Amino acid sequence: MEKTEKMENRLEKQFGFLRELDQEKQIGRQTYLADGSRFENDAEHAWHMAVMALFLSEYSNEKIDLLKTISMILLHDVVEIDAGDTYAYDEEAKKTQKERELRAAERIFGLLPEDQEKKIRALWDEFEAWETPEAKFAHAMDNVQPLMLNAASDGKTWEEHQIGLDRVLERNGRSKEGSQELWAYAYENFILPSVKNGKLRTE
Amino acid sequence: MEKTEKMENRLEKQFGFLRELDQEKQIGRQTYLADGSRFENDAEHAWHMAVMALFLSEYSNEKIDLLKTISMILLHDVVEIDAGDTYAYDEEAKKTQKERELRAAERIFGLLPEDQEKKIRALWDEFEAWETPEAKFAHAMDNVQPLMLNAASDGKTWEEHQIGLDRVLERNGRSKEGSQELWAYAYENFILPSVKNGKLRTE
Repeated sequence: MEKTEKMENRLEKQFGFLRELDQEKQIGRQTYLADGSRFENDAEHAWHMAVMALFLSEYSNEKIDLLKTISMILLHDVVEIDAGDTYAYDEEAKKTQKERELRAAERIFGLLPEDQEKKIRALWDEFEAWETPEAKFAHAMDNVQPLMLNAASDGKTWEEHQIGLDRVLERNGRSKEGSQELWAYAYENFILPSVKNGKLRTE
Repeated sequence: MEKTEKMENRLEKQFGFLRELDQEKQIGRQTYLADGSRFENDAEHAWHMAVMALFLSEYSNEKIDLLKTISMILLHDVVEIDAGDTYAYDEEAKKTQKERELRAAERIFGLLPEDQEKKIRALWDEFEAWETPEAKFAHAMDNVQPLMLNAASDGKTWEEHQIGLDRVLERNGRSKEGSQELWAYAYENFILPSVKNGKLRTE
């Protein structure tokens, strides 16, 4: 009986967290879908990155634990439920981003039973620290996924925000730490075409 | 040089597939988001199921390979890019569902390099066959995720489609094969409240 009550209580917390996560479907990003029809949201972005990791892990510079990498990817944007999406090229918003996201991590991960809270917090901290092979590859997916979509939508969001090539290269400067090969491919196939047709400014 | 060309060709196929998957974000389901504001789509659904599997795998009846289960979940609806979402209670559409989905699997998985096509096809077939512990748990997630959202949105989609309790129970009849505990929790917390307030019809 006590065991059942304990389990009920644990399930209550777990589903409280899982229901809260539903809001990630309403956090808009600045990346258009491939057909340019609308912006994608954080949940769609995380799903797409996770699938990419499944099919592209062979290109990781270092050997990675794929389950850990995918777990990291699925959860990397959860904090944006409270902190919002900070556009990669919004320098003002980026100043307060870390603090907003830390507070969000406390509240949202805190909905879980303590053992699971600790695990997800460690995973998110590891992603943020960008040091392990798994974190580096997850970040490479986080960069290459929008590059793929920006190329597919013909540089639409770069043109609208008048982003220059230098800022895209700066933003993606560490992608190669996750995968030299994927970065080379993305540069050649997702970035250069938008430079050639003038959607990505070089002046 | 030849090696580089081969890799370019492999990457071309992989990204062709990954770009094609973007369309899954536009396949609408009949489940409302928790706040009832709009329907969710297949990509969001798969992401939410994958996160649920991460935090609820302890309740699986049988020991499961979590990476395999999550891979299955992330990809289980890819065929709907061609075949469309078949609503669980649309008996006419369900008659042609299998055939439509098989054709879709041929075309979409066929975009990948052959080794990866074989792997994903085997994974999808395993999910569809509903026999292994991983497939059973993935199906339990596929059932419990919309139950959780339907309860959160106060039975809105059940009321609109005038769905009866008997059909919900039939639809979810095999959830317990994946997890007795999650099924018991879902029945008590996600289904019964909508019966009590009349959103789920029992006559």
